[in-house]
Amino acid sequence: MQKGIFVVFEGVDGSGKSTQLDLLNKYFQSSGIETYTTREPGGTRVGEKIREILLDPDFSEMRERTEALLYAAARAQLVAQIIRPKLELGTIVLCDRYIDSSLAYQGYGRGMELDFLVNINRLGTGDLKPDLTILLDLAPEEGLARSRKSRPADRLESEALDFHRKVRAGYIELSKKSNNYLILNARDPVDVLHGEITAAVGGLLSV
Amino acid sequence: MQKGIFVVFEGVDGSGKSTQLDLLNKYFQSSGIETYTTREPGGTRVGEKIREILLDPDFSEMRERTEALLYAAARAQLVAQIIRPKLELGTIVLCDRYIDSSLAYQGYGRGMELDFLVNINRLGTGDLKPDLTILLDLAPEEGLARSRKSRPADRLESEALDFHRKVRAGYIELSKKSNNYLILNARDPVDVLHGEITAAVGGLLSV
Repeated sequence: MQKGIFVVFEGVDGSGKSTQLDLLNKYFQSSGIETYTTREPGGTRVGEKIREILLDPDFSEMRERTEALLYAAARAQLVAQIIRPKLELGTIVLCDRYIDSSLAYQGYGRGMELDFLVNINRLGTGDLKPDLTILLDLAPEEGLARSRKSRPADRLESEALDFHRKVRAGYIELSKKSNNYLILNARDPVDVLHGEITAAVGGLLSV
Repeated sequence: MQKGIFVVFEGVDGSGKSTQLDLLNKYFQSSGIETYTTREPGGTRVGEKIREILLDPDFSEMRERTEALLYAAARAQLVAQIIRPKLELGTIVLCDRYIDSSLAYQGYGRGMELDFLVNINRLGTGDLKPDLTILLDLAPEEGLARSRKSRPADRLESEALDFHRKVRAGYIELSKKSNNYLILNARDPVDVLHGEITAAVGGLLSV
């Protein structure tokens, strides 16, 4: 393998992204295949500092353009410092959220201009696209309920259910614009989803 | 006066920007004209947090795109939260550095693509342009020497003199592309410079 594979997990909070990412990671590790897992925003020292600002509920005055640029900054650092070098070494990179999270949440969810979001992220990442984006699709009512069980609500989660419905619809729109989206029903059993994911990623490996 | 005036001070470190900004501010205050002074990066709570990341010499791994997006994020917040509302109230806003600092330092100085910098800043600020940019032009050898006397060198200042020469040349290029640049020789006496600045700003007020 000369070049690695870049796999992104997307979906509303509580859709089981992290669970499936962990399972896929263990699957590769048990096969002796090198992987690197990371998350957005964050994944680097600089990105974690940016993440602190983004997730601090005290900064309620933060404007949406500021927020979008901060996400793009953390992402630019993650891509340049970690993801591109790992891919060049042939590593499989598994990432919890990527550009489509910004487009789904800020664009479709909050009504920010999509062109602005696409442009700052394309510029920031040097237009690095995932080889596969796995969307764990779930009704937001259920996602929020699942998520709240395990930890307190953060600023994004506190926004209204209506917002999350727009986010879900946004992900579906994004999937239609792309050739490398795998849409799964997040209500399916964990092992069934894992099987579908390993099959799809396996297909990429054997190309 | 229905709309305020947006005046930006630019120049290499040690060129006397802050001194002239303070003098102009006092000049207006003594005339009973309302002003607001601010600085970049920073000027808001969110911006000051971003400034901490930008100026922390410990983050030597920060990539140039990340840095550019962080400056743009702090600037977007400052414009949306402070500068635009103040201008709408008719206030004179005096700002220490603005977009041309990013273009001069990161673009001309470090060789980053100017289009990238122009685009993220245009998008972030909603294309807010200064009514007047005052460039205090100074040979970088002298600027660095002046600046070091008063405080320890930060990360940007630690870069080579050759870099600062490119920055200075960049500012001159930027001034040629604009209709609202006032270029002053920073070696002129403080009161002479102040007189030239008040005359130029006074010209804007009487329009």
